[in-house]
Amino acid sequence: MRDAFLRAARRSDLVLVSGGLGPTRDDRTLAVLAETFGRELRLHQPSLRAMEAFFARAGREMSPSNRKQALLPEGAEVLENPIGTAPGCMLETPEAVFFCLPGVPRELMRMMEEEVVPRILRRQGGRMKGVVRSALLRTFGMGESRLEDELSDLARDEHVSLGFRTAFPDNYLRPVARGSDVAEAEARLEALCAAIRERLGPVVYGRDEETLEEVCGRLLCAAGRTVAVAESCTGGLLGERFTAVPGSSRYFLGGVVAYANAAKCSLLGISQRLLSRHGAVSEPVARAMAEGARQRLGADLALSTTGISGPGGGTPDKPVGLVWIGLASDRGSEALEWVLPFDRLRHRLATSQLALDWLRRSLLELPPPRRDGSRRAP
Amino acid sequence: MRDAFLRAARRSDLVLVSGGLGPTRDDRTLAVLAETFGRELRLHQPSLRAMEAFFARAGREMSPSNRKQALLPEGAEVLENPIGTAPGCMLETPEAVFFCLPGVPRELMRMMEEEVVPRILRRQGGRMKGVVRSALLRTFGMGESRLEDELSDLARDEHVSLGFRTAFPDNYLRPVARGSDVAEAEARLEALCAAIRERLGPVVYGRDEETLEEVCGRLLCAAGRTVAVAESCTGGLLGERFTAVPGSSRYFLGGVVAYANAAKCSLLGISQRLLSRHGAVSEPVARAMAEGARQRLGADLALSTTGISGPGGGTPDKPVGLVWIGLASDRGSEALEWVLPFDRLRHRLATSQLALDWLRRSLLELPPPRRDGSRRAP
Repeated sequence: MRDAFLRAARRSDLVLVSGGLGPTRDDRTLAVLAETFGRELRLHQPSLRAMEAFFARAGREMSPSNRKQALLPEGAEVLENPIGTAPGCMLETPEAVFFCLPGVPRELMRMMEEEVVPRILRRQGGRMKGVVRSALLRTFGMGESRLEDELSDLARDEHVSLGFRTAFPDNYLRPVARGSDVAEAEARLEALCAAIRERLGPVVYGRDEETLEEVCGRLLCAAGRTVAVAESCTGGLLGERFTAVPGSSRYFLGGVVAYANAAKCSLLGISQRLLSRHGAVSEPVARAMAEGARQRLGADLALSTTGISGPGGGTPDKPVGLVWIGLASDRGSEALEWVLPFDRLRHRLATSQLALDWLRRSLLELPPPRRDGSRRAP
Repeated sequence: MRDAFLRAARRSDLVLVSGGLGPTRDDRTLAVLAETFGRELRLHQPSLRAMEAFFARAGREMSPSNRKQALLPEGAEVLENPIGTAPGCMLETPEAVFFCLPGVPRELMRMMEEEVVPRILRRQGGRMKGVVRSALLRTFGMGESRLEDELSDLARDEHVSLGFRTAFPDNYLRPVARGSDVAEAEARLEALCAAIRERLGPVVYGRDEETLEEVCGRLLCAAGRTVAVAESCTGGLLGERFTAVPGSSRYFLGGVVAYANAAKCSLLGISQRLLSRHGAVSEPVARAMAEGARQRLGADLALSTTGISGPGGGTPDKPVGLVWIGLASDRGSEALEWVLPFDRLRHRLATSQLALDWLRRSLLELPPPRRDGSRRAP
């Protein structure tokens, strides 16, 4: 660590350090930083009191080990941590300024925004060489290489660029624009976003932080409609995703995890005869599950999933990866079939994404989702 | 990138590079590496054919952009990627050996194990300065600083060490042991693990890759018992976690996501009177939910959750963070109350972990879980 600190200070004016501020013996960032630059560690009383208050609020007793987290290099400026126990600190050395932040991502991100960036801007005295603005466009249903082909002529001038990132089962696009001021950068960014959306159509389902379940929730609210689920292979994942959104009780009524066949009968009213004749992973059962959930929960719309996520359970006729997704509404029910060549967890994730995307498209009166080649011919 | 490659080569004998091997324009690792060390990029025919076969297996057409992924620096040795499109490569330069791997974590990890480590061992010619062995002990219900206090006298000699890592809602311990051969390192590791387990008792719920839901599944199988769930605030997360485990259909029957009160009545047979009298987040309703799920799904055991995950929905009497968890068995039902000071997603995660840990402890005939101070007094 000493070597890394010295190298970084030689190469850079600002050094960001994350992690190693915790209460345990393997958390040594501040001790090593202090030693490297010939400082003592000093007990910082306000940080100790803030930590005691944090534990009191959580109704827990502070452990003796936590005291260590209030030891800071002499001369350091404290960076407050509003959501955790470890404060950060800023230390100026002759060669560079060090910002030390906790490794817990949510604490680090919050402190970066509230404590570090404002200090960096102040140190620069407001001088900026132009402005950069970026967005995140979330796409589902098109491979990264096909996205590149579709967008190959966009973002080819010096003011804009386009990044690609896989975030299974999605692919994210990162348009970036530069300008001499905020208005110019934002105008370039919006023009690029509009060009991408025009090219890709409904493959772009959202922007920035908005997840697919949030998009569905927004559309359901706008339409004044409610939804329920009947899940077999996804085992609760669809319900979990709907209810991860604050306020989802306005449109999500609930659901049934019908993992065993007996549960499909008792909770969704599916007949044993239908199950025996077609098997649980079939179009009629996917439709009956969606219809059963819609009726029993009194919802406007219902989604269902039944599939073979693997690794076991496949047959020549119904291979591992097969899934049927059902959608019921006041216009009746439909089911679509896919074979998704993924391991168990990714199969479930992709299935839940296809179901949510179908719901989104149906609320927008668009055709159902496709996924390059993975849908079986009817 | 050129600067980083040159610095790394000066400092190290082996350089591991991850990411930038994809089909899109921002994937530039191999082009820059080749240029930095004065090599041309050459089309590697076997990799192109492997990629074509990969797409054919997935039933998809290969995009022209993918061809770029078969361009490798001349003189490079191909590292095969059995689960993705981008091959890796090993390039020897006068100062260091570069291993370039895809950034997708599951592809990187598999290739590290199968392609990179064996080559590193071969290059060392079997010479090793001692052996290191480590384990991961998974704990739930004790803070990181209290773990440090409890274990403060362990792993204090030069042959062993102990690392700590927060992985909400768990805390992981990483005991590490060194020895002159495998037997010595493993004996030291096992002695340290045994000492930790003796000190912490049931707070250690698992080791290495085994998750809490897998531990529950193993115990349910061993006891020949089945389980069902009735979820309100967790919204499907408990079912999702049970069914994430391959083979869970042997013991997990299914469940009900009773998010709306009407769903609690229609799917679990809870009376409107009970809901009106006590409210949905209450001991009687948590017990009735667990009993309803147990009875309707015909399970030996059932878990229920009902709480206020926030950010809205709290009252002075029932604050945000409050949760009741129920457990029903042939001996009747019980419910326990907690106030968990976490944001929505962490509240749901901690609730599901408490429920699973209670199930684990009940199968082992241990008392229910505690979480430092967060349980309300009865």
